[in-house]
Amino acid sequence: AESTQERSVGRKFASYTLFKGKAALQAYPILPKFCTTSSGYSRMEKNGVVMLVFWPAIGTRKYDWEKKQYFALSPTEVGSLVSLGPSDSCEFFHDPSMKSSAEGQIKKSLTFAPANGQSGYYANLSVMNNLTKTNERLSVAITKAEFAVLRTACSYALPHIMGWDQVIGQEKQTQPKPGVDRPHPEFEWSR
Amino acid sequence: AESTQERSVGRKFASYTLFKGKAALQAYPILPKFCTTSSGYSRMEKNGVVMLVFWPAIGTRKYDWEKKQYFALSPTEVGSLVSLGPSDSCEFFHDPSMKSSAEGQIKKSLTFAPANGQSGYYANLSVMNNLTKTNERLSVAITKAEFAVLRTACSYALPHIMGWDQVIGQEKQTQPKPGVDRPHPEFEWSR
Amino acid sequence: AESTQERSVGRKFASYTLFKGKAALQAYPILPKFCTTSSGYSRMEKNGVVMLVFWPAIGTRKYDWEKKQYFALSPTEVGSLVSLGPSDSCEFFHDPSMKSSAEGQIKKSLTFAPANGQSGYYANLSVMNNLTKTNERLSVAITKAEFAVLRTACSYALPHIMGWDQVIGQEKQTQPKPGVDRPHPEFEWSR
Amino acid sequence: AESTQERSVGRKFASYTLFKGKAALQAYPILPKFCTTSSGYSRMEKNGVVMLVFWPAIGTRKYDWEKKQYFALSPTEVGSLVSLGPSDSCEFFHDPSMKSSAEGQIKKSLTFAPANGQSGYYANLSVMNNLTKTNERLSVAITKAEFAVLRTACSYALPHIMGWDQVIGQEKQTQPKPGVDRPHPEFEWSR
Repeated sequence: AESTQERSVGRKFASYTLFKGKAALQAYPILPKFCTTSSGYSRMEKNGVVMLVFWPAIGTRKYDWEKKQYFALSPTEVGSLVSLGPSDSCEFFHDPSMKSSAEGQIKKSLTFAPANGQSGYYANLSVMNNLTKTNERLSVAITKAEFAVLRTACSYALPHIMGWDQVIGQEKQTQPKPGVDRPHPEFEWSR
Repeated sequence: AESTQERSVGRKFASYTLFKGKAALQAYPILPKFCTTSSGYSRMEKNGVVMLVFWPAIGTRKYDWEKKQYFALSPTEVGSLVSLGPSDSCEFFHDPSMKSSAEGQIKKSLTFAPANGQSGYYANLSVMNNLTKTNERLSVAITKAEFAVLRTACSYALPHIMGWDQVIGQEKQTQPKPGVDRPHPEFEWSR
Repeated sequence: AESTQERSVGRKFASYTLFKGKAALQAYPILPKFCTTSSGYSRMEKNGVVMLVFWPAIGTRKYDWEKKQYFALSPTEVGSLVSLGPSDSCEFFHDPSMKSSAEGQIKKSLTFAPANGQSGYYANLSVMNNLTKTNERLSVAITKAEFAVLRTACSYALPHIMGWDQVIGQEKQTQPKPGVDRPHPEFEWSR
Repeated sequence: AESTQERSVGRKFASYTLFKGKAALQAYPILPKFCTTSSGYSRMEKNGVVMLVFWPAIGTRKYDWEKKQYFALSPTEVGSLVSLGPSDSCEFFHDPSMKSSAEGQIKKSLTFAPANGQSGYYANLSVMNNLTKTNERLSVAITKAEFAVLRTACSYALPHIMGWDQVIGQEKQTQPKPGVDRPHPEFEWSR
């Protein structure tokens, strides 16, 4: 769903993609949604995410894009990822049908676990479907350098998926009334 | 006051909000104010802040927004927050009526103290009112991942609440006089 | 090739350049390339790089720019560089003719190795040419402060050479439908 | 000189200012200068700096702005500052008349030295004037939180005083030729 709505005409798409032995992993940011409130200002209605997409290998350098699985990291989950120490692990649980009648039918879990010798991490995605009685597992090894890319890019994306860049980037206003011309402690302290 | 003036028509609002057992905590940046000086240039008159808002829980998933308390973090207080080690704590004192006749009537103190096992922090706000003889206390547990979000978002916001982005973002000028075409040590060293 | 296409009319060029005893080193970012897909959206076709240029000293404060050697760091190689610990080293191998008939004729290797006492690094570039039977070696000592500049500038450049800034910087949209006016846990949790 | 040229009509000014017992310290970024080359592109001719201004206290909350001393930190000096460990110190030497006939008449030295208990730093500026046989010394204590502000703001400013933001911020181009529509390892590997 996210993919379709995002990749529409005129929009730009860029990702960080890792092709590994058993599966591929793609990461890219999705912006938050704002809406107009009754008071006339604009408010973030839905935060952005860092979208992770996993899809399986089906041969040497061949991958099945039709079997892709999405996992959308919220700001707090991104915070967990970027603060992960070299021997830390973290786990996230998602239910894509939460608060609908289908709640609990599909359970997704994503784990980042340290690889041997702190040389990187394994990202393990499990998708349990109670209707089809299937459990898909996708695992991607992430090197230390690749994780540094994810950490840096996710730290960069975090204020943007939180909408803080749109608060900060709005039109700056300068008051016409004249202010003091040189630094003065009373002035600085009264800020 | 900050809330009203900021959420005016056409402006954008986005925050990071945590709903916990006893209280909720919201954080968002507020831009600095610039004014024109007698010399004709524009100067920051009032620095921006990272605004924290606390308000109490009054039942399961129910919170009383009318009892909200503001605490505006200055750039240096933001610096204290983003450099907090896992076992460090910090405390800030504010008097909302400083330098007015009501000085000392209300005393606000905000503490960030490490939770057990360095698993995060407690943010404790105390608001003492000498007129009404009340002391409101609001406490919010912040997980390690949530604090990583606050740290990353506050580090991002810091140069913006200091106004440095507006100094840096102003119109870039390119001199028409031709310069050298290739790197040369004399040139580089004379920069 | 990269140099020519980048330094065309109306474009801007800035680099970080170090002139040392045996060689000089220049670093600058190159943006990714986007193209329009059949579906109408724009997709990153070629990621950007942090370009490193080495050229030899031929006397006191004299350097031979004609003998310059390029080494383009991919996002993952930049990730490796910015996560380098004070006693870590890393090595990258490039073949400028990869997947052409000339594959394997030229082999480039770049190493970052810690200097004595963790006071910085040596950047060592080796270019082996099997046709001309030559092996050029260029070495530049990088102080701790200079490496901090490279680390900070490369961390800044990373999301840009990955194209994430263009995904994030595209036109922000605000829905006209009115949203809630104050924070509410159901609202926040359903994000 | 820097102050006059920067604070001209229509320009914006913002700084981080510390008023302490013996002196005050102000920090703000100054953008690099670009010029047009004979080849038609624009090239950074002079890098930007983080300007530090020191001026002495002459009483309680009174400071003498006329006695201000400038110290302009180059990108590498900023790199040194932002990578300073809690028990590290660094020292910079400047000659404002370097490469002129007055070279050596004025010697400026700036030291950042750790305060007791790693609670912050002292910034000590010394300006020796051989003509007037004077040696002015200005010292400002910087708390851990204040240094975190300087570190964060200087890390933010660094790519901008290096001109990398202007390289990265120039008009992005999208090729009209259609590209592939889904991730493919051959495509990704050939980047």
